[in-house]
Amino acid sequence: MAGRRPGQFELIARYFAPLARDFMGAGDLKSDNAFLPADARHDLVVKTDTIVAGVHFLPGERPERIAAKAVRVCLSDLAAGGATPYAYQLSLALPPRWTERWIAAFVRGLQADQRRYGITLCGGDTVATPGPLTITVTAFGRVPRGRGLSRAGARAGDELWVSGTIGDAALGLLAARHRLRSLALEKRYRLPQPRTVLGRRLVGIVHATADVSDGLLADAGHIAEASRLGLVVERERVPLSREARRVVASDPSLWAAVLGGGDDYELVMAVPPRRRAALLAAARAAGVKVSPIGVFTAGEGVRLTVAGRRTRPPRMGYVHF
Amino acid sequence: MAGRRPGQFELIARYFAPLARDFMGAGDLKSDNAFLPADARHDLVVKTDTIVAGVHFLPGERPERIAAKAVRVCLSDLAAGGATPYAYQLSLALPPRWTERWIAAFVRGLQADQRRYGITLCGGDTVATPGPLTITVTAFGRVPRGRGLSRAGARAGDELWVSGTIGDAALGLLAARHRLRSLALEKRYRLPQPRTVLGRRLVGIVHATADVSDGLLADAGHIAEASRLGLVVERERVPLSREARRVVASDPSLWAAVLGGGDDYELVMAVPPRRRAALLAAARAAGVKVSPIGVFTAGEGVRLTVAGRRTRPPRMGYVHF
Repeated sequence: MAGRRPGQFELIARYFAPLARDFMGAGDLKSDNAFLPADARHDLVVKTDTIVAGVHFLPGERPERIAAKAVRVCLSDLAAGGATPYAYQLSLALPPRWTERWIAAFVRGLQADQRRYGITLCGGDTVATPGPLTITVTAFGRVPRGRGLSRAGARAGDELWVSGTIGDAALGLLAARHRLRSLALEKRYRLPQPRTVLGRRLVGIVHATADVSDGLLADAGHIAEASRLGLVVERERVPLSREARRVVASDPSLWAAVLGGGDDYELVMAVPPRRRAALLAAARAAGVKVSPIGVFTAGEGVRLTVAGRRTRPPRMGYVHF
Repeated sequence: MAGRRPGQFELIARYFAPLARDFMGAGDLKSDNAFLPADARHDLVVKTDTIVAGVHFLPGERPERIAAKAVRVCLSDLAAGGATPYAYQLSLALPPRWTERWIAAFVRGLQADQRRYGITLCGGDTVATPGPLTITVTAFGRVPRGRGLSRAGARAGDELWVSGTIGDAALGLLAARHRLRSLALEKRYRLPQPRTVLGRRLVGIVHATADVSDGLLADAGHIAEASRLGLVVERERVPLSREARRVVASDPSLWAAVLGGGDDYELVMAVPPRRRAALLAAARAAGVKVSPIGVFTAGEGVRLTVAGRRTRPPRMGYVHF
């Protein structure tokens, strides 16, 4: 009945970006974050994310983990903005059969993440819904004035680096759905680890960042697009966990999930070669591994190579429609 | 199956307020708004509200009006904070059968309110939901540093004033549900008119404010509670529109809807008697009528009088559970 409908990015570009045209700090909604003045020395970095039961997390997931996921997907964006998080607002739409016990566990999850990330609740809303549990978090962070990172700003010749390992979450979702077996990967899907400590150390080192929420190639591609560049990614340099290596070795078609699946919440970064040492020092200080996996070029589009040969990239990006 | 469950205010007090304990500007979540530093001369005023189809607006409502409602319920809180709105983030959870035509109309509604209120979109999220249309808006405004208004701060002897007329929205909801006939009242329910022009003029004049979203007695009671005072409201002084007067005269049991129903989006204010002239001047400049309807007293609780005799208040406040 609906005919062909625009995808998420098309919707944003065609309908929502024009509404933000006059807001300098919104970057035409191409950035993960909005930047607002905070004080003489800082910008406020703001990001809103919504997660829905059965869409963004498994129905029946433990409330502590749902709380963590709701908060952490936003903190991941703040990390990509180079921001230090400090507060959040929470909107909770509760389905008919909620219990006080569920709320108590959910709040314990929030409390644990408040301590872990140094953030505090500063407002929100609680409503009833006849539909699934729906949670919106708006997270606030600070970054030195004018120094916030975004997807735009990469230059031709910059290397593409990525933090941690890629693909665990997408493979973990397959594990949670019993399409493959791996408890370790499943946990990685259920409980994202945003790179908040690394993110704030990237200010002044990298030219552009994004977090890997839609999928490695999609999110690295967002940097290329926002920076009006092309990008070459070498598949064999993409860092995999030992567990991911094992399952991909046994079924190479899973590379599509690794490169195209979302929810890794690692950072992809455009790094000028002369800043390589600074990046490695920042990563060491943050206790995070970083790996170079490609290079930004003149032109446009994302090319994937396997053993030096150009390959058709898998489906690009996890789009929630 | 769930046993007795806490109401919305109990949930907030017991579970969510402790999470905000360390955030000075959150006022223990007893305020409508959070206050964050904005620049040397201003605080940023932030408010998040969620509306759900079938709960907060009628299913099948026109998309332009849904957009207006989503934005305006937040702007009403900013007005109660004394803030001048300037930006908002929007999270849209779209049900399965959304159409591009619907989106286009919804965005036209946002565009019209951006012009009307001088605000601009600065970020957000768009996701799919198997449930009803769910919209979360986080609105941002500015107020002179340290001067933001909240529910706390009323003093014994302050008069309770209210803007505009009360009860139209609750009666309008009954009209929309065919329990009574009045197109004028129905429109008032469907399309709130937040008092943004009056709100910002109240800074330095009133001691405390709230917007009437839960119901006149409930929201005036929130001021009393946050200010640790009692409150007497005289029913015959509560300003009604001609249309509301007509329907209440024909069925006095509708007073319960007038005093206890929500969605008026007027402002209730605690005003020291010596500032009465300043309030009237501010209201005149804003083109809004204001009326004194009661007085704050030592003690606690809300008392309603009818012709000088104490009366049992109707069910207090529209709680969305």
